[in-house]
Amino acid sequence: MPPYAFQPVTQRIIEELSGICGREHVTADDAAAMRKYAHDQVPGEKYAHMPDVVVRPRTAREIAAIVRLANREHIPVTPRAAGSGLSGGAVAAYGGILLSVERMNQVLEIDVANLMAVVEPGVITNQLDKALRPHGLFFAGYPMSDEFCFVGGNVAENAGGGRAIKYGVTGRYIHGLETVTPTGEIVQLGGKRVKDVTGYDLVHLMVGSEGTLGIFTKIYIRLLPRPTARVAILALFEEVSDAIAVVPRVVTAGRLVPSAVEFMDRFCYANTVALIRESFPTQAIGAALLLEVDGNRPEVVAAEADIIRGICAELGAKAEFIARDESEIERFWKIRKQIPWMLRRTSQVQSVEDIVVPIAAIPQLLPELDRIGQSFDTLIPVFGHAGDGNLHATPMKNAAHHPAQWEETLTALLTEIYAVTARLGGTISGEHGIGHKRRDYMPLVMESAQIDMMRRIKQALDPNNVINPGKIFVLE
Amino acid sequence: MPPYAFQPVTQRIIEELSGICGREHVTADDAAAMRKYAHDQVPGEKYAHMPDVVVRPRTAREIAAIVRLANREHIPVTPRAAGSGLSGGAVAAYGGILLSVERMNQVLEIDVANLMAVVEPGVITNQLDKALRPHGLFFAGYPMSDEFCFVGGNVAENAGGGRAIKYGVTGRYIHGLETVTPTGEIVQLGGKRVKDVTGYDLVHLMVGSEGTLGIFTKIYIRLLPRPTARVAILALFEEVSDAIAVVPRVVTAGRLVPSAVEFMDRFCYANTVALIRESFPTQAIGAALLLEVDGNRPEVVAAEADIIRGICAELGAKAEFIARDESEIERFWKIRKQIPWMLRRTSQVQSVEDIVVPIAAIPQLLPELDRIGQSFDTLIPVFGHAGDGNLHATPMKNAAHHPAQWEETLTALLTEIYAVTARLGGTISGEHGIGHKRRDYMPLVMESAQIDMMRRIKQALDPNNVINPGKIFVLE
Repeated sequence: MPPYAFQPVTQRIIEELSGICGREHVTADDAAAMRKYAHDQVPGEKYAHMPDVVVRPRTAREIAAIVRLANREHIPVTPRAAGSGLSGGAVAAYGGILLSVERMNQVLEIDVANLMAVVEPGVITNQLDKALRPHGLFFAGYPMSDEFCFVGGNVAENAGGGRAIKYGVTGRYIHGLETVTPTGEIVQLGGKRVKDVTGYDLVHLMVGSEGTLGIFTKIYIRLLPRPTARVAILALFEEVSDAIAVVPRVVTAGRLVPSAVEFMDRFCYANTVALIRESFPTQAIGAALLLEVDGNRPEVVAAEADIIRGICAELGAKAEFIARDESEIERFWKIRKQIPWMLRRTSQVQSVEDIVVPIAAIPQLLPELDRIGQSFDTLIPVFGHAGDGNLHATPMKNAAHHPAQWEETLTALLTEIYAVTARLGGTISGEHGIGHKRRDYMPLVMESAQIDMMRRIKQALDPNNVINPGKIFVLE
Repeated sequence: MPPYAFQPVTQRIIEELSGICGREHVTADDAAAMRKYAHDQVPGEKYAHMPDVVVRPRTAREIAAIVRLANREHIPVTPRAAGSGLSGGAVAAYGGILLSVERMNQVLEIDVANLMAVVEPGVITNQLDKALRPHGLFFAGYPMSDEFCFVGGNVAENAGGGRAIKYGVTGRYIHGLETVTPTGEIVQLGGKRVKDVTGYDLVHLMVGSEGTLGIFTKIYIRLLPRPTARVAILALFEEVSDAIAVVPRVVTAGRLVPSAVEFMDRFCYANTVALIRESFPTQAIGAALLLEVDGNRPEVVAAEADIIRGICAELGAKAEFIARDESEIERFWKIRKQIPWMLRRTSQVQSVEDIVVPIAAIPQLLPELDRIGQSFDTLIPVFGHAGDGNLHATPMKNAAHHPAQWEETLTALLTEIYAVTARLGGTISGEHGIGHKRRDYMPLVMESAQIDMMRRIKQALDPNNVINPGKIFVLE
């Protein structure tokens, strides 16, 4: 990390923060209480860092006051939602102030007439979903971690998820953001209007900016009519290439966009089925696809599911299972959702990757991942959002290798994976973000002129570099 | 306009431009040939301006060379697509170099496997549509002017159009941009991948930046399966408020998102029907709605059209007409599409506005527009995209008023309209952009802190302020 010259958090600063937020919402000198704020879901200690002080403000004004203090005293401020991220975004890489939005957890408004929800950043995604259910509406941009992630974090990372192929990612639904700027002003970007070309699209510059350009205090989310019918298809293939061929065929020949197309390789599928004691066949299965269609007309959804099943069969599926009721659908999804847990049980020493390529390049990417894994004698299980070309390749430390060797192996291995991804027209993150975990790999997939444009925007909006410094890129 | 100290375009500069583009693609000292480049579709001369030289480059490299020259010599460069804009964006407000992309008119690739098209900025939107038709695909983000507008202009303005309620606006489909930066570098932002969170979303910072942050040279567009069935409904109402009540009812009670919900007030509807010699009733009709549903299953589309017709009838429609075949559907759309032509025939002295409010605020907005029109003794016909809350209120000069008085009246009238729009949570442009036409009204709908953020981004990326200066905001 570059040696930015930040100032220390003194007792005087802690007193001032207590004056802003209330003493009970400021924690310092309490390693036990602060430990959970020192890391996100990236395994290991390499990208963890203890903050000097944790603050839990309740209002935009409190956040603005904290940010102004940070500018005046030149202390870094790292905003944090649920800490469920996978790139280190919510980690105070330079210490300083960790600003948790956990107390800003209110669904402020469900405006049915405008099809908009207004929420605070600390709302758990699934809680918003529960609040929307009685209105027959939903927020279509939610990620897989919806049971614990916060909406604010989803927006900061522009989270994806299992239904992005049909519904797009988080950003598509974000129409407004009340934001505290890096210099401590409160601005209202966008709002409840669904179209807006009044100058630059600052809303979507903020979406995915990983907490480096502002701290969101209110989020305006567009809602859709909630689909009332869905059907899931679990299709099992001997050959990975047959499974992958399903995706473009469904969209072009099938003329339909499924609400999900999830891919699981042999290792992910078979081991998770075994771990959760499921009964689906695993013998000689090289790849599994979980597809889903949704809509409001059960007969249409059923017909679309039939089209998909037909395409799977035609492309050589060994078996297809259809789930029509919610509990059966959840049973299929459980296999997919438990993969990360199965992988962590297999080895804590791993790196969850998030590469994305043009969808048609997946058949070229998968053998390359195999080849790279073999050349490093390292297992790289692959699962993820095949419909988006977004795969969570997850290199796992070989138990036979010396622990001290892992970081070096991983760096070399990731460099190869990322280079292949770039060559196929892809990039290093589809939904997890860069943070400081992937920061130093950025030049593998992006020209320096482009990284420099990002740096200049950061400097223009955060002249003192106090908001989440060291993430995405390094300032000179 | 502020007195930016640009340098004149000398004979030496014209020689250098000729060296870059070829002499036949550089025009200077030819007022007749250059006149069409001096204005866009904004009526009148107030926002028109003659460039000093028009260049028609063919490649990104030529554009990069022109932009580097402009930086070195401090001469403004204004990029221009079809000139079909409605906010002055493509007008060389400070003279200098007008850079037309008209020769960059190739559909470079239709990549069916990746559901992506790659086009040059000078492709006419409708030509792209024709090229996609045989593949059963379409670009869903096209605007109403698709028969003459260029894709590059659509992206620069983030154009909307008649189907945005279902499909969103242009930006949703833009996944990559090869762009010449304001300092003359060629960068590849995004590409054919459908998800990408590798740093800031520069693609969507460029979309809608009105040619002030870069000049697009390749555009990557995501394609959708082309709907094979559509039905249109023309519903006629006595009361505006009844017509407007249809929109939220369709989405919430009807549980469907129509592909279009267009609104026409009494003046627009009745006069256009008369002008194009249509036979639809106009007696005692206060408002007309043109709704459309599309999809791939004729029976579903027909059923959805029935739901909409039922809702219209229930809310007091005097008559509903259903169009099931393409020529009949086009007959309905012709009324809507000919409104701007009817208005120009009525008076050339007018201002096509583009206000947008949260959809539920339309019933409050329309009486306010009435009131403002009456207080200025000025007719304000209203038509537009009711489903998006985006209305083209069009103040028309009262023939009884003295021409010299118009600008003053218009300024006062627009100030009132924009203030009402802002009070209802809206803004001054939903799809036409700011340009220099609406620039000085920006403070009515946007805090200075936010305008200042835009200025700082502009200065960070265009330090010499040579790319389309004077648009959106004024630099200090």
